[in-house]
Amino acid sequence: MEERNILRKAFVKHPFFADIEEAFRFEKKFGQYEEGTVVIKAKDSLKVFRGFPKIRRALLLDPTIKRHFGDREVVLEEKMNGYNVRIVKVGENLYAITRRGLICPYTTEKARILIDDEFFRDYPDYMLCCEAVGKASPYVPTDVYSIETLEFFLFDIREGKTNQPVTIDEKKEIAEKYHFKLAEILATVNSDDVEKMREIVEKLNRKRREGVVFKDREMVLNPLKYTTSYANQSDLKYAFRFFGEYGRDFMLSRVIREAFQSFEFEEGEEKFNERCLRLGRAILEPMIESIRDCKRGEMVCEESELVFESPEVLELFKLHMKLLGVEFRIEALDEKRVRLKRIMRSTNDRIRGILQGSTWK
Amino acid sequence: MEERNILRKAFVKHPFFADIEEAFRFEKKFGQYEEGTVVIKAKDSLKVFRGFPKIRRALLLDPTIKRHFGDREVVLEEKMNGYNVRIVKVGENLYAITRRGLICPYTTEKARILIDDEFFRDYPDYMLCCEAVGKASPYVPTDVYSIETLEFFLFDIREGKTNQPVTIDEKKEIAEKYHFKLAEILATVNSDDVEKMREIVEKLNRKRREGVVFKDREMVLNPLKYTTSYANQSDLKYAFRFFGEYGRDFMLSRVIREAFQSFEFEEGEEKFNERCLRLGRAILEPMIESIRDCKRGEMVCEESELVFESPEVLELFKLHMKLLGVEFRIEALDEKRVRLKRIMRSTNDRIRGILQGSTWK
Repeated sequence: MEERNILRKAFVKHPFFADIEEAFRFEKKFGQYEEGTVVIKAKDSLKVFRGFPKIRRALLLDPTIKRHFGDREVVLEEKMNGYNVRIVKVGENLYAITRRGLICPYTTEKARILIDDEFFRDYPDYMLCCEAVGKASPYVPTDVYSIETLEFFLFDIREGKTNQPVTIDEKKEIAEKYHFKLAEILATVNSDDVEKMREIVEKLNRKRREGVVFKDREMVLNPLKYTTSYANQSDLKYAFRFFGEYGRDFMLSRVIREAFQSFEFEEGEEKFNERCLRLGRAILEPMIESIRDCKRGEMVCEESELVFESPEVLELFKLHMKLLGVEFRIEALDEKRVRLKRIMRSTNDRIRGILQGSTWK
Repeated sequence: MEERNILRKAFVKHPFFADIEEAFRFEKKFGQYEEGTVVIKAKDSLKVFRGFPKIRRALLLDPTIKRHFGDREVVLEEKMNGYNVRIVKVGENLYAITRRGLICPYTTEKARILIDDEFFRDYPDYMLCCEAVGKASPYVPTDVYSIETLEFFLFDIREGKTNQPVTIDEKKEIAEKYHFKLAEILATVNSDDVEKMREIVEKLNRKRREGVVFKDREMVLNPLKYTTSYANQSDLKYAFRFFGEYGRDFMLSRVIREAFQSFEFEEGEEKFNERCLRLGRAILEPMIESIRDCKRGEMVCEESELVFESPEVLELFKLHMKLLGVEFRIEALDEKRVRLKRIMRSTNDRIRGILQGSTWK
């Protein structure tokens, strides 16, 4: 399968990953196996951790939620803005697997500190599906949660081999028992209580949060997600700051979400104009910021500050970034803290060309 | 070559096109032959009409125009908002070829009425490259020019076989001699007179015009184009009204133009906010309009009113639209006028699905 470009290397071999002899990830969905599925060869076992399933999106609350969940009880959980991690145990240690199926040394180091592995004595083959959130994030740095470092918020517990989730009630019990932080459970509603859903979305929007995941309380039906205008627009800001890197699909989809939300929420002219102004600014401001950076001779890059407990993990993290194919610089700030700069090569090159007078197709 | 999907049928065989036995168009650039090149087999000759060359774009006036034109005299012409047509003579009659290389019966009928074919006695193998502009346009209906019907504005005269253009001065002489309307020649400047160029762009923007084509007075170097904010934003309005049909590339490129213009024109906060608000509205308003149309049970379609001098040409035009693969309806308004509705299938289907509660990937 490696020849068919589906199986890829999932980690950098290193003493920090001592329990793992080999690990491959599925780069695409293959049969029942989700993208991001990882196959790990440990000393005396072969383990499979299924990729986190794609969650489909509602563009309209009404009638989408009702149609999807029918008569079942719907639990609304906060969709947090970080990166998706599956924390698992292999051999003697915990490992943190990112969405695409890579074992991340930085996240693994944090998981080993923050997550009580007692859970895995009782559930050895399960995955703690968490959102890794905070300023000290190498992938999606966010500061709306006032988390200076990186924390894990549990949202699903799934069996590694089958991807079978536990129910919401079981998840709550487990979180309490092992002291895991949960992505907040906001409400349990009937599937036609659009009023309540909308109220929650609007409140999250005011708090600059990402959105909601709608779940079947029994976890039999698949979840759905819905994002706030704040999230749509901050995605756009990000994408337009690095417009050379980000796909056109990414941009269009956010705009479509805004249009359906504006239509459904039937806002008056003032609110609508506000939304339009925010949208226009979310697009133009970051692009112009990038142009100005280039004009001043600076590189357009994404920055974050990371905290490493061990210099060995920092070195391994550098190799990991190379495996990811990321162009980056790392500057030491103090003994434990570094500044990570991802260089956005395509955005830089395109802007620089135009500033020098290149024409455009 | 037909097997390699490059040569396509360029017309519907019909007595109105009596001079033409066969005609093929190049669907893609092939060697030196531009996309839209047409090969026509007439009774006793084979004629080649080269596709209109792509004009590259300046995203910044400074330093792009200077760098491209160096010390040469630069002529600024108005870039009109219509559709590009090459008017040619084959056998006894005039024919109008659209950008992609199709012989359009509607445009041909208008050309035979409006264009004095005396020109072709002197220049039998030349093409009159015109913008077809006005409300009665089947492709790009616009009303900023207050043209109720359809008119032709000449911007280039090129030899069919070689694509060799005449100079600007020759073009002016020819237009005067044969009474052709010209796309307006706005100024002749040095390539570093950015101040003047910008003044002209801003004036065109206030008049809601499309933009400027910068030309080497001798037509030795290739032209460049530059569009107004008005044009960028009205393109966006169009694309977002029919967001299922229009590519993501189309949208992103317009936004990039706005960002570079805003950067170059160094507008203050008030002007910048105005631009952002207009941009946001240009994106959201047309999408919401389409959603509302679907909600009311109407089809999202593009409408225009066309005027046919002959019922025979109307019938031929219907066959032509089928050749183009366009889904359309035609409603008779009176003896000569019809309403053409292009149905935007993909936009309709996508919106309808979401209104019924479909989820989104």
